[in-house]
Amino acid sequence: MSLQGNALVAQSGGPSAVINNSICGVIETWLDSGRQGKIYAGISGIKGVLNGDIVDLAAQRREDVAGLRYTPGAGIFSCRYKVSAVDHEKLISILKKLNIRYFFYNGGNDSMDTAYKTWRAAADAGWEMRVIGVPKTIDNDLPFCDHSPGFGSAAKYIAATVRETGIDLESVSTKNKVTILEAMGRDAGWLTAASALSRRFPDEAPHLIYLPEVPFYKESFLSDVERVYKQLGYCYVVVSEGISDENGEYCFTSGAVDAFGHVQLSGVGIALKDMVEREIGIRARCNTLGTAQRAAMHFASKTDADEAYMAGKTAVEYALAGKSGVMVTLQRASDDPYRCVCSEVELDKVANIEQKLPVEWINEQHNYVTDEFIRYARPLIEGEVAIPMKHGLPNYVRLDFSKGRVSID
Amino acid sequence: MSLQGNALVAQSGGPSAVINNSICGVIETWLDSGRQGKIYAGISGIKGVLNGDIVDLAAQRREDVAGLRYTPGAGIFSCRYKVSAVDHEKLISILKKLNIRYFFYNGGNDSMDTAYKTWRAAADAGWEMRVIGVPKTIDNDLPFCDHSPGFGSAAKYIAATVRETGIDLESVSTKNKVTILEAMGRDAGWLTAASALSRRFPDEAPHLIYLPEVPFYKESFLSDVERVYKQLGYCYVVVSEGISDENGEYCFTSGAVDAFGHVQLSGVGIALKDMVEREIGIRARCNTLGTAQRAAMHFASKTDADEAYMAGKTAVEYALAGKSGVMVTLQRASDDPYRCVCSEVELDKVANIEQKLPVEWINEQHNYVTDEFIRYARPLIEGEVAIPMKHGLPNYVRLDFSKGRVSID
Repeated sequence: MSLQGNALVAQSGGPSAVINNSICGVIETWLDSGRQGKIYAGISGIKGVLNGDIVDLAAQRREDVAGLRYTPGAGIFSCRYKVSAVDHEKLISILKKLNIRYFFYNGGNDSMDTAYKTWRAAADAGWEMRVIGVPKTIDNDLPFCDHSPGFGSAAKYIAATVRETGIDLESVSTKNKVTILEAMGRDAGWLTAASALSRRFPDEAPHLIYLPEVPFYKESFLSDVERVYKQLGYCYVVVSEGISDENGEYCFTSGAVDAFGHVQLSGVGIALKDMVEREIGIRARCNTLGTAQRAAMHFASKTDADEAYMAGKTAVEYALAGKSGVMVTLQRASDDPYRCVCSEVELDKVANIEQKLPVEWINEQHNYVTDEFIRYARPLIEGEVAIPMKHGLPNYVRLDFSKGRVSID
Repeated sequence: MSLQGNALVAQSGGPSAVINNSICGVIETWLDSGRQGKIYAGISGIKGVLNGDIVDLAAQRREDVAGLRYTPGAGIFSCRYKVSAVDHEKLISILKKLNIRYFFYNGGNDSMDTAYKTWRAAADAGWEMRVIGVPKTIDNDLPFCDHSPGFGSAAKYIAATVRETGIDLESVSTKNKVTILEAMGRDAGWLTAASALSRRFPDEAPHLIYLPEVPFYKESFLSDVERVYKQLGYCYVVVSEGISDENGEYCFTSGAVDAFGHVQLSGVGIALKDMVEREIGIRARCNTLGTAQRAAMHFASKTDADEAYMAGKTAVEYALAGKSGVMVTLQRASDDPYRCVCSEVELDKVANIEQKLPVEWINEQHNYVTDEFIRYARPLIEGEVAIPMKHGLPNYVRLDFSKGRVSID
């Protein structure tokens, strides 16, 4: 099983609050394994590797690496880039030059596609290299996982924000009587659904939740809002950015398309706010948290952060044990007490498949989630991450990539 | 100086994360003063008082009252309502019936106008009643104050969010290269400016800040963004919801007007995002935190929370000492170490006046703030409030207003 050589780690896709926990898990586990091989980082994902933008992580201070455990964003930078056949040739040549025998790729569905293709390309080129995917997505849509690292923190932040802005709404509903919160998650409603964790009393926010898994009907939405408003005097709605009509078409798009062919969404919250004001005639407000949902480390879930680290650590352990072509998964070993362990799934099974919120966890009226979802999600948001503060703000680390740069030629 | 009778406290205007600290300060100081008089709450501000929606706060559990120190929203509910001459007659009759001799009103500029008019109406009616205003506004625009309770917490939350989403932007700028964050504060740029507290390194977010105190020029904005983008590959902009043109007209309004005649703003962030995409041709994103800015108790400033409590406590002390017709103010006694004390100002001086960000604290290019502003604002965001957690979320209190209801007739 022993394979001598170096390791490379890279991140891709949108960050989560805890994505760097996984990177930290990879780096620390590699460095502490006592192996001779170096560990490199591809700066800005596979695109950085292709550009030769690679650093030897031994040049970083260990305390800065440790600081990745409480630092949001992609600590070694990320990209959104679809690798082509021409790229693969160049990629393999770079990996050979640096004697990369262990390749760790941290990201979501698209990134696992990249990892899978890199693994295949290496095999086709006769280059022995172990490839392990490390899962990440606030969208919680990676298949074969009980849940994805990154989801718990985004869920905790959105639930806290809905609780706080819900209390705000009910305490001063004389002006804007409806609050619409737009949640990330284009095709999977997990994060939108997580807002339900906020509610302790029947009249507390959120009152209505609209998910991409079931068709959105304008008429049902308006009558739902009107009913809650008549009952309480205010109404709090959480809506997924990716709600779709009965034909599966997004209700609101900007027309643009990204590198992976995904349609760019835009302005669901604002559109619904305008609709409520125009059609019901009551004043509404829209909160669009945007990237704060995937970056709010100041209120991340400790459970999530620890599991993200565990996923990175396990990736190295799997690779050193001879595994390859797999993504680490999280499996729920026990519900009460909650306990989570790692397992694995073949990269080609996971690539480009989205795991949606089960329709059984959506109520009959298609405007809320069931208690079963709450039981599933609640343990994932437990605990808070201790963060060093300076001048009243989280003092996040920043690695110095002017150090340890490698030369390919 | 001794005046026997009961007290009434009420809140009005938009809440801050720490507004309930002031209410708690009023209630606890009154209850602990050993006076015979009751302390009532007007539920939903002056409008609730007029509707006879009044409760005896002795009916609440003391631990719930204490819990107001970590609970956002308006704990005794709020309103936006301009009191008329007819209302005043009814108001005085209700205050007489309940033998209200101490009247505490917690809010911003408009609320101090209400407090002043209530004071005058009582005097005109020959009803001896001491009226004290307790300041509150995340906008930080109350005059005669070094700063307003509520500002520090909103400033801390927005600065943390800009730091986190800024790190997110710089770590994955391949897709959306410009982030626009829209900040509250219609005519005063304090909160927008506070985002600058986030920046530790010259290339860190925010890169550009646009304030309502100076005219906004579309051409300057676009060339600023393009310059930063060319230099760094990304650009983070924070903009006030109330930016105005050279004639002092809001750049973006919805056309609607509120009870106090204020024009309703809408969609500055989205408008600028669209402008960047259309005119510069680079993809942008907009984060609109909305009411989260004034409700995010989970990351409130301890300094701010303690000062809000002190303002409420001082209001009762002032009233018991015979003062009336004044608002409590916060004055900076010392910069290093930072120390803040209470003082007072006549209600008629403060009502309806907005204290704007000094133009000297805005840079020459009108696209950032000076270090002097940073020195001013930094102490206000120090410290965090300990909040009891349950199931991974802040377990905020909710007073029970079915208890202690009074009958007016």
